[in-house]
Amino acid sequence: MATGFAKYHGLGNDFILLDNRDALAPHLSPEEAVRWCDRHFGIGADGVIFALPGQAGSDYSMRIFNSDGSEPEMCGNGIRCLARFLAALEGLDETASVGKTYRIHTLAGSITPQLAGNGRVAVDMGPPYLLPRQIPTTLAEPETRAIDCPLRVGDREYAVTCVSMGNPHCIIFVPDASAIALEDVGPQIEHHPAFPQRTNVEFVEIVRPDYLKVRVWERGAGPTLACGTGACATVVAGVLNGKCERTCTVELPGGPLAIRWAEDGDGHAFMTGPAERVFAGKYEG
Amino acid sequence: MATGFAKYHGLGNDFILLDNRDALAPHLSPEEAVRWCDRHFGIGADGVIFALPGQAGSDYSMRIFNSDGSEPEMCGNGIRCLARFLAALEGLDETASVGKTYRIHTLAGSITPQLAGNGRVAVDMGPPYLLPRQIPTTLAEPETRAIDCPLRVGDREYAVTCVSMGNPHCIIFVPDASAIALEDVGPQIEHHPAFPQRTNVEFVEIVRPDYLKVRVWERGAGPTLACGTGACATVVAGVLNGKCERTCTVELPGGPLAIRWAEDGDGHAFMTGPAERVFAGKYEG
Repeated sequence: MATGFAKYHGLGNDFILLDNRDALAPHLSPEEAVRWCDRHFGIGADGVIFALPGQAGSDYSMRIFNSDGSEPEMCGNGIRCLARFLAALEGLDETASVGKTYRIHTLAGSITPQLAGNGRVAVDMGPPYLLPRQIPTTLAEPETRAIDCPLRVGDREYAVTCVSMGNPHCIIFVPDASAIALEDVGPQIEHHPAFPQRTNVEFVEIVRPDYLKVRVWERGAGPTLACGTGACATVVAGVLNGKCERTCTVELPGGPLAIRWAEDGDGHAFMTGPAERVFAGKYEG
Repeated sequence: MATGFAKYHGLGNDFILLDNRDALAPHLSPEEAVRWCDRHFGIGADGVIFALPGQAGSDYSMRIFNSDGSEPEMCGNGIRCLARFLAALEGLDETASVGKTYRIHTLAGSITPQLAGNGRVAVDMGPPYLLPRQIPTTLAEPETRAIDCPLRVGDREYAVTCVSMGNPHCIIFVPDASAIALEDVGPQIEHHPAFPQRTNVEFVEIVRPDYLKVRVWERGAGPTLACGTGACATVVAGVLNGKCERTCTVELPGGPLAIRWAEDGDGHAFMTGPAERVFAGKYEG
């Protein structure tokens, strides 16, 4: 009855990976995923990721249940873990897997991670969306980008820039990210009426034009160790404000991500970061 | 290079169990245990328990490293997990293991858990110590027990009873345990000058004379799901105050423990509670 799984993390954002290539539906229900993700009574994880058969021309499909049972469209840290899990399932060792790409069908469309060596995986995160209705935010006029806009929170005013990477981000440049009372300010901005679908919040310290230090308040989750879409949105916001280069290292509490906002085409953002296998197990609970 | 382990929990107090019967020293250093216990980058646990060879006439020895690398003398929830782990290592299934006892050498002396069926394990937790210097506390005169003593905390006064089960406990009976601001009051009592070695704190609601609801503030750890010594100390304090019977169910946030304070001999406290195997794994990190 024991079910095999593997445990991975990307910058401390940790997942239970299940080989689900033999069936179109996830092996677990959302309720079972909640139980498996419990850090005291279960295996413990931020989510369960299912490696499913490909569809519509993709190599594989990905589904993910969060620890609260909800199902996000995509997850940057999670898809890096999935790419390394798939290489392991295919019997590819670290050397053999370098350069290998997987076309993955997700609920946010097709994503193609590429194994980059040294346990790292590169992911095309798509283009940013910058119009107020795409984010969505009421901080700018319909056809204007919300760059360096004043946002009043309690008795303070912040200069914020809004970027969507498929999910909303409110980016604030500060002299010292570690000095921010994230638990206090984060929820106030997340629920500010200027963001009708709420928002993720990034406090960004420009250490150098190619090195940013970021603390993230994730919508619905609070402070997290790492947020891939947040790192991409941060570099986009930094470039739009003339504060950083298009290729940056973004240091998150869980570790660094390499971000590149391409100038060509429709300006996709690319993220490269680690995905580590920690252990394999058999669930008996 | 992968190291096998099993993961158990007792009322949500969760442990990585290692078969260390082939060597006298733990297979992991305290620093490695800290890494394994990390809930995002490692396996995730409150501690690592090593099943070591017996000594001084015992069947086995137990060592335990907490998630912060410290080494406690003993752990009531942990030794229940160890007993079931040993039965599994010996190939005993649930039915065959009922009634089985193990004499375990711990840093707190010899402890003999007994498998009780239905995944439960009974443990003789030894006698309580009631003299102020044994606890230690300054709340009573040297040869007097600290029962129902006034303790001033900020602008409030609590009636407290002090019991040691090898570690200090300050028990406070309240009409509604759920109404206590544990994060606020807990640390103030833990560090109160009346407790020179600090103290664990239990807020106890007498639901019935044989059913107590307890919230625990653990010394150095804060609010925890379950504390075996705290459950025993609570029943001892309840009997000394004429508030409960010698045999009680103690409901902790992680679930119930059955506690019995024996009247005969030197009045040992006995705890019976669950220990659940969740998964087996191989660490590859």
